[in-house]
Amino acid sequence: MNAKIRVLRFGHRKKRDIRVTSHCALVARAFGAEGIIIDGDNDGIAENTIKRVNERFGQGIEVRHAAWKKTLKDYKKKGWKIVHLTMYGEELGKSLGKIRKEKKIMIFVGAEKVPGEVYKLSDWNVSVTNQPHSEIAALAVFMHELLKGKELGKKFRKAKVRILPTARGKKVQRLEKQFQV
Amino acid sequence: MNAKIRVLRFGHRKKRDIRVTSHCALVARAFGAEGIIIDGDNDGIAENTIKRVNERFGQGIEVRHAAWKKTLKDYKKKGWKIVHLTMYGEELGKSLGKIRKEKKIMIFVGAEKVPGEVYKLSDWNVSVTNQPHSEIAALAVFMHELLKGKELGKKFRKAKVRILPTARGKKVQRLEKQFQV
Repeated sequence: MNAKIRVLRFGHRKKRDIRVTSHCALVARAFGAEGIIIDGDNDGIAENTIKRVNERFGQGIEVRHAAWKKTLKDYKKKGWKIVHLTMYGEELGKSLGKIRKEKKIMIFVGAEKVPGEVYKLSDWNVSVTNQPHSEIAALAVFMHELLKGKELGKKFRKAKVRILPTARGKKVQRLEKQFQV
Repeated sequence: MNAKIRVLRFGHRKKRDIRVTSHCALVARAFGAEGIIIDGDNDGIAENTIKRVNERFGQGIEVRHAAWKKTLKDYKKKGWKIVHLTMYGEELGKSLGKIRKEKKIMIFVGAEKVPGEVYKLSDWNVSVTNQPHSEIAALAVFMHELLKGKELGKKFRKAKVRILPTARGKKVQRLEKQFQV
């Protein structure tokens, strides 16, 4: 699957959501999205987190701020398909086959109250369990299923360090300069 | 798979971790763990969140507070196996087959700095990608893989409402009293 994936984080509130939005951005990066757009307060926190992580662990996601409604409509016009993750949505397995055929996928993750319009503008409303839990968890499990687990071994360009999986302790490989270009 | 699963959340800091720890507890509940033990500050926030959700959406997880080291050692003595989720650990796929054979599994999820002793006390150190992201996401993807997606349709006893999956909007079923007992 070679789809472009971007994430739209709805309704970020400074202070209250600092860590949750940063976690969303880090998951989007680690699982291979190429961008995250943050709607709501622009406090620069997620950008700083991602900038630090990109510099050290390799070039991943870009972070931008924009208003959700204009973003959704613009993306739809450009042929992107919108997947809204919500506990009210259809079972994950039901739409995955169709979504996997798309080439440009925007994943909408909400905060507590998502406007009704989002349910209508979205091509799919998808649930990861029908229980209340976490937009971070929903994003991760959805991307993991969408990408069939291939994201787990994703490599990042221009990394300064690479973690080598190990049964005990920590193995960190410092990469030579010639690989950083 | 009929294993008992509990989660140990390491190093909760009041204020800073309020929402992240609550998300961990909600994921643990939604994906079918029977308990979560919180190490660190005891601010009662996760308990309140889970109490509210259990009452409305059905009886799930129990929340307790305890110190991590004693908890790990006590559980190990009682035959529980410890799975520590860490970006430094072995690939997820490598140990899943073995872990799935166990009957009592404690999943250890950390904050930023986990003591070296945890790596030694754990039966498995497992990574969900070797990139920095989110303990909430790691917990969700690990449980999802461990339970082979069967957790997605989990039913909860004594629920007052049930969400019915739907393509558009929200369908909430109010359950009759005879089903609440």
